[in-house]
Amino acid sequence: MQHEAIPVIGAHGRYGALRHVGRVVTHSDETVAEEVPVALVYNGISHAVMLATPADLEDFALGFSLSECVVGRSGEIHDLEIVEQANGIEVHMQLSAERAHVLKEYRRTMAGRTGCGLCGTESLDQLARRAATVQSSAALSRGALPRALEALRAAQQLFHLTGAVHAAAWCNFDGGIELVREDVGRHNALDKLIGALATQRRGFDGGFVLMTSRASYEIVQKAAAVGIAVVAAVSAPTGMAVRVATESGVTLVGFVRGERHCVYSHPERVH
Amino acid sequence: MQHEAIPVIGAHGRYGALRHVGRVVTHSDETVAEEVPVALVYNGISHAVMLATPADLEDFALGFSLSECVVGRSGEIHDLEIVEQANGIEVHMQLSAERAHVLKEYRRTMAGRTGCGLCGTESLDQLARRAATVQSSAALSRGALPRALEALRAAQQLFHLTGAVHAAAWCNFDGGIELVREDVGRHNALDKLIGALATQRRGFDGGFVLMTSRASYEIVQKAAAVGIAVVAAVSAPTGMAVRVATESGVTLVGFVRGERHCVYSHPERVH
Repeated sequence: MQHEAIPVIGAHGRYGALRHVGRVVTHSDETVAEEVPVALVYNGISHAVMLATPADLEDFALGFSLSECVVGRSGEIHDLEIVEQANGIEVHMQLSAERAHVLKEYRRTMAGRTGCGLCGTESLDQLARRAATVQSSAALSRGALPRALEALRAAQQLFHLTGAVHAAAWCNFDGGIELVREDVGRHNALDKLIGALATQRRGFDGGFVLMTSRASYEIVQKAAAVGIAVVAAVSAPTGMAVRVATESGVTLVGFVRGERHCVYSHPERVH
Repeated sequence: MQHEAIPVIGAHGRYGALRHVGRVVTHSDETVAEEVPVALVYNGISHAVMLATPADLEDFALGFSLSECVVGRSGEIHDLEIVEQANGIEVHMQLSAERAHVLKEYRRTMAGRTGCGLCGTESLDQLARRAATVQSSAALSRGALPRALEALRAAQQLFHLTGAVHAAAWCNFDGGIELVREDVGRHNALDKLIGALATQRRGFDGGFVLMTSRASYEIVQKAAAVGIAVVAAVSAPTGMAVRVATESGVTLVGFVRGERHCVYSHPERVH
């Protein structure tokens, strides 16, 4: 552990965006919640990586260790150090020899990866595979967004029954809804939509995705991986979602609400 | 693969609950979104387990395989079979020998587990460790819930800046907010709260948790793991959250909205 502790980056950042209110478009600096990969490292071994807001990370590391039964009480963590890396943040913790042994035995039975495309990755280095770039001449008129939103509200069957699920919709460039999938997990809803599009051999370039949720990193990453050029979300984006969208050629639209929305990346596709 | 395919269970279920509207309490059957562990199994090897709504699982498995780059096109999955197990659902897929080899090599570099306490678990069997039971005489008056909700709205600093984060609050039994933590991930917000409580040596039995999010499985599981007896959430619970709360002795309250809320398990703690 040769790193020096560096102050943790802020919980939010400013991102340039185009804010649409009806026909009026203004440049704005939007305050966006940060989301960064945080690796929990016990006795020098990276145990899990999660996307988290980089604030209160000591609390996070201790709480995770307790709630996931890595330790039984906080006194079993002898040292906690936060180390900022180029690709995320590591929280290094020292466990007692006994707890470290239990964890090592437990880890022997585990191997796998995960739904959201990031949590469960073992170390920050493993994130390097992310590099799709979407090339697409897709374009939608801003009027398509409120039309799609209104149509989607009517189409959320499971949400109307339960109040508990997200929807991912495939919309044509006029704002018509062509497919909807729902799930308690937003990334699952998007995976279901991607699977349904693939099954129907529709391709991924004839429309855009509208999510009823926030736009977080894994949503943009999954869209980019299959070549979806435009992702719109009813709620806010995270900073990492904006950065990944910018890098991967995805147009990211947030806060789709009636005649309002905000375009965070590649605005050339929204007219 | 000796299993026979069994029809997938429904996307929602009915759960008995107590619905409070002001002083009026009625028994009700609530329609709750289901959330079950779904294991994706490639060529007989369990690759990842995610919590998902058990509908459109063929779409889900195919979409995940594409968006996580397990396959490059849907034709590389030769067979897909859904198998209901006692503890969840397995989706068995057959990959080409070439894709299976790439996946095997990739998996060699991965080992770890995850933030939400479930996704990233490799197989359904590994869920068996869940077995904490909360013993607590904690009790709150129903008036504490709207008070806590109103106070929490004012305390969500990062949410007011970004619109993008969840909060987990520690509330006393009168509805006063004692601690708040925020994060893009609801389970991270709860882990931060648990860590802060541990650091301040407050214990976990002198109050209750209020989440601004839905109440999903991992929230209840994390609370039960450290001995928190009452979890209240602004939005809906999932079926798995209700079942785990019932089994683990946690009082689960959903749809906390003004004078209304709904108690899904162990209602004896809400007066």
